[in-house]
Amino acid sequence: MRDVAILGVGMNKKWGELWDMSLRDVFVEAALNAVDDAGVDHLDSMYVGCMTSGLFVGQEHVGCLMADYLSTTPIPATRVESACASGGAAFRQGFIEVASGISDYVLVGGVEKMTDVSGDEATSALSAAADMEYEAYHGITFPGLYALMARVHMERYGTTSQQLAHVAVKNHKHGAMNPEAQYPFEVTVEDVLGSVMVADPLHILDCSPITDGAAAVVLCPLDTARKISKKPVVQVLASAQASGTIALHSRKDMAWIKSTNQAASKAYKMAGKGPQDIQVAEVHDCFTIAEIMVLEALALVERGKGGQAAESGMTALGGKIPVNTSGGLKAKGHPVGATGVAQVIEIIRQLRGEAGPRQVKGARIGLTQNMGGTGGSSVVHIFGAV
Amino acid sequence: MRDVAILGVGMNKKWGELWDMSLRDVFVEAALNAVDDAGVDHLDSMYVGCMTSGLFVGQEHVGCLMADYLSTTPIPATRVESACASGGAAFRQGFIEVASGISDYVLVGGVEKMTDVSGDEATSALSAAADMEYEAYHGITFPGLYALMARVHMERYGTTSQQLAHVAVKNHKHGAMNPEAQYPFEVTVEDVLGSVMVADPLHILDCSPITDGAAAVVLCPLDTARKISKKPVVQVLASAQASGTIALHSRKDMAWIKSTNQAASKAYKMAGKGPQDIQVAEVHDCFTIAEIMVLEALALVERGKGGQAAESGMTALGGKIPVNTSGGLKAKGHPVGATGVAQVIEIIRQLRGEAGPRQVKGARIGLTQNMGGTGGSSVVHIFGAV
Repeated sequence: MRDVAILGVGMNKKWGELWDMSLRDVFVEAALNAVDDAGVDHLDSMYVGCMTSGLFVGQEHVGCLMADYLSTTPIPATRVESACASGGAAFRQGFIEVASGISDYVLVGGVEKMTDVSGDEATSALSAAADMEYEAYHGITFPGLYALMARVHMERYGTTSQQLAHVAVKNHKHGAMNPEAQYPFEVTVEDVLGSVMVADPLHILDCSPITDGAAAVVLCPLDTARKISKKPVVQVLASAQASGTIALHSRKDMAWIKSTNQAASKAYKMAGKGPQDIQVAEVHDCFTIAEIMVLEALALVERGKGGQAAESGMTALGGKIPVNTSGGLKAKGHPVGATGVAQVIEIIRQLRGEAGPRQVKGARIGLTQNMGGTGGSSVVHIFGAV
Repeated sequence: MRDVAILGVGMNKKWGELWDMSLRDVFVEAALNAVDDAGVDHLDSMYVGCMTSGLFVGQEHVGCLMADYLSTTPIPATRVESACASGGAAFRQGFIEVASGISDYVLVGGVEKMTDVSGDEATSALSAAADMEYEAYHGITFPGLYALMARVHMERYGTTSQQLAHVAVKNHKHGAMNPEAQYPFEVTVEDVLGSVMVADPLHILDCSPITDGAAAVVLCPLDTARKISKKPVVQVLASAQASGTIALHSRKDMAWIKSTNQAASKAYKMAGKGPQDIQVAEVHDCFTIAEIMVLEALALVERGKGGQAAESGMTALGGKIPVNTSGGLKAKGHPVGATGVAQVIEIIRQLRGEAGPRQVKGARIGLTQNMGGTGGSSVVHIFGAV
């Protein structure tokens, strides 16, 4: 296996309700930015992470579509789907392909166009990430599922609604420094607690939004990156993925994201690093409670202390371990298929020292965690400046 | 890169309208058969080829779902989608993962559950493989697109409706020897020409059916297979994939499947073989005209002579190059996400000498070609008994 590096990264100018762009336009904008940043004149292969373009815009075969509109035919173009972890899973496939020696320059993008349907239709499309026959069919939605998880966490560890709110406050504070974010503004604990209740205890400001957006990166062998890159080189130190039960009711512990813990254990081992080495992390805060549980599963925070971590400032910029400096899914937006790739981009920018006002000073090691459903799929990557 | 072999293969007992099985049941049956055939007690990773479970049964996140119900958690489980080439593309990802050294035992399955919706809904779901905004939105369906391709081929090369019918006659003759096939019965040229017209010149018997079904294989390093396999060992000699324009109207030549030709060229080079070395092939006969064009693009038949090849018996069992001995998509059935994996299974059985009454005597080298849409994606694999 060859060592792998990231040569270029690109996003849309801004995520949000991109009503003047179609699915292909959204993807191509981000992909061209990544190719430009990489400074390459050709690609060998590409992956597109996308969860449910079929249900959102009636389009499957999105690998082919994007290669066609990006003018990269005849290279292989493959779509990868693992619900909201589609972007992270696609990145892993790109990593494996470069590591294998089959391809040198691989573009990995992620995209979702979610605002062309009604809110009800979007909720329904997203529920396809749950167990359709045993969860969604009976009427539960994702806010409902995460609310159940939150209730268990609150009951067992004393986590409070205020602590949940602090996750949103932190991520919006970070997102306010990110011009690409969908909601680049700050909110207060009072704003969160006073916002409409979606599924008790989750208010609307505990939930990530519906977003149109894409993100893309270009991978290549580390040796190549050292030779041709005009930017600081960042290596993929580890790639790990794990699966769990798709349905929440099948789990022994509803407040523990086992697949994230298992993927993280493998990733730390592969990278030869531990949680104490991570200086910046982007994690899957689809709901505020998700960030709390994920940080515990990653061992970045002690089990049961995820709520306190947000409240204490430990996970804010300037804290012990800054989390979601991009604004996270909460403020940056959550175009589901793109999220896992966008997380990688934020970490690359941090390790390159390109994160501007939200830069974590001296960051050399970063981590991304992307998950699908209520944690049925988790993908963890560790990156290092070299 | 390590050499890769196929250790086990498995299908459903029979493809067709599996109304007493859900999507997960269909997949798990085939996957367990593959694991049993492989004789392994664990897997390291898995891929699921599936085109549009979201539109057919409201379920995405099918990698996780299948790992959960196959009881293979926490291994990584990733869904791959490239329209009707999803199975072939998934197989390629499994090949790359084993070749890279990241995993030893990888299960690659494909599945589609298509008969839980009406015929109109199925036609609409399948049209998501075309360019939704520029083709499907304006009302054209896949029979219509392939009818346009057939018209060009007929005009330019003198291909006749009788020759198209001979493809169906041949594949049903083969399929009649395959107990797993959806339609294991013979048809005559008169049957085909007398059947209802779907999109002139394509009659209903020129079209592959709507099918529920799954297929799965287990891959491992060649060295491992040599040590542990109780069956003849078959190596993956080449894996190649290419993309073309998603829309038919974007092509310079509507009667030439460029992506298949490009993937085949790469595959022949990687295997160190040429078309003359191929002794048996499974190709993507979603419509009779497709098999004709594909055989030309693979250089198994001279350009423009695909119709004559079917009529002359050249591509039938006992002919120069037997094609679709399984019955092909036409008679075996076409559960879109599973098709590419099932093609591999037929070739493995042929190269193992397990194909029973449809055995190609002495077959040592075989090829599969799987494609998405009207040829926007093509995946070609070459296999060799070792």
